[in-house]
Amino acid sequence: MSITRFETGPRMSQAVVHNNTVYLAGQVAKSTAGKSVTEQTTEILSIIDKLLAAAGSDKSKLLQAQIYLTDIGTFAEMNKVWEAWVAPGQTPARATIECKLAASQYKVEVMVVAAK
Amino acid sequence: MSITRFETGPRMSQAVVHNNTVYLAGQVAKSTAGKSVTEQTTEILSIIDKLLAAAGSDKSKLLQAQIYLTDIGTFAEMNKVWEAWVAPGQTPARATIECKLAASQYKVEVMVVAAK
Amino acid sequence: MSITRFETGPRMSQAVVHNNTVYLAGQVAKSTAGKSVTEQTTEILSIIDKLLAAAGSDKSKLLQAQIYLTDIGTFAEMNKVWEAWVAPGQTPARATIECKLAASQYKVEVMVVAAK
Repeated sequence: MSITRFETGPRMSQAVVHNNTVYLAGQVAKSTAGKSVTEQTTEILSIIDKLLAAAGSDKSKLLQAQIYLTDIGTFAEMNKVWEAWVAPGQTPARATIECKLAASQYKVEVMVVAAK
Repeated sequence: MSITRFETGPRMSQAVVHNNTVYLAGQVAKSTAGKSVTEQTTEILSIIDKLLAAAGSDKSKLLQAQIYLTDIGTFAEMNKVWEAWVAPGQTPARATIECKLAASQYKVEVMVVAAK
Repeated sequence: MSITRFETGPRMSQAVVHNNTVYLAGQVAKSTAGKSVTEQTTEILSIIDKLLAAAGSDKSKLLQAQIYLTDIGTFAEMNKVWEAWVAPGQTPARATIECKLAASQYKVEVMVVAAK
């Protein structure tokens, strides 16, 4: 059974497809790093849309999401963007926790698994 | 390959089935929120039993578990409930970390993946 | 569809195989517990090599990795060992966060999913 990788670097691939399942790397903000949780979440979900499309999937096929916030006090702010983005009736299993991320300009990180 | 979702809300589904794999959302205590780790873990594992049953699986088919504790000092207390619950000889891969959760009354959250 | 488990204890299995997918438990250092992130990461990745081999897989088939560091300041130190270990061109999706682990002698924990 084959494995297909996308945006493969020396440390990680941004997407890996195997057995009709798409695993994305944890995504963080690029152009909005250091900005608000609303801005960062919006950008992250846009990146996820592009990666899922490249892998032959889309947000209506999300299976699982793990969301990391550096301040759980921003839970409602993140959720507002999240709920406006997900496909109604096709939301994934999800867990959200507070933890520190790889760099201080990141306030949110999202890692998803989707069906192809 | 079809996707089947259970208890689907605007933010997440409590269970998602794809390709003979069941993804549950991170489960937290409901009636025992604010109570002890023993009570919360017991309730959470009971919720997981019900969700797995709805999805056509059960605890003997667990593949992976992620456990979040707000105080790693409760690791042994959580494990006592966990070990009494799992199916002997059919335990999943597992990782446990300490982190803050979505609301302060939650002391433990458990997210699992199971075979159907 | 069958489930095969490896190193199954009362709390968890170190590896679980289902549907051509291998789920490993979060791995921590054994002989290097309490030592540097470099030493712990090196040992952990060696343990992962052995578990993947037992399950009929190897690091070139990694799909997803979750890395937990107790001090995100050791991110570069962990990455140096990680990048020397992964199979070039075959890196997994990955996320790294800072959180406390089950015991204070552990500075890093790695949980992976691989294709069989």
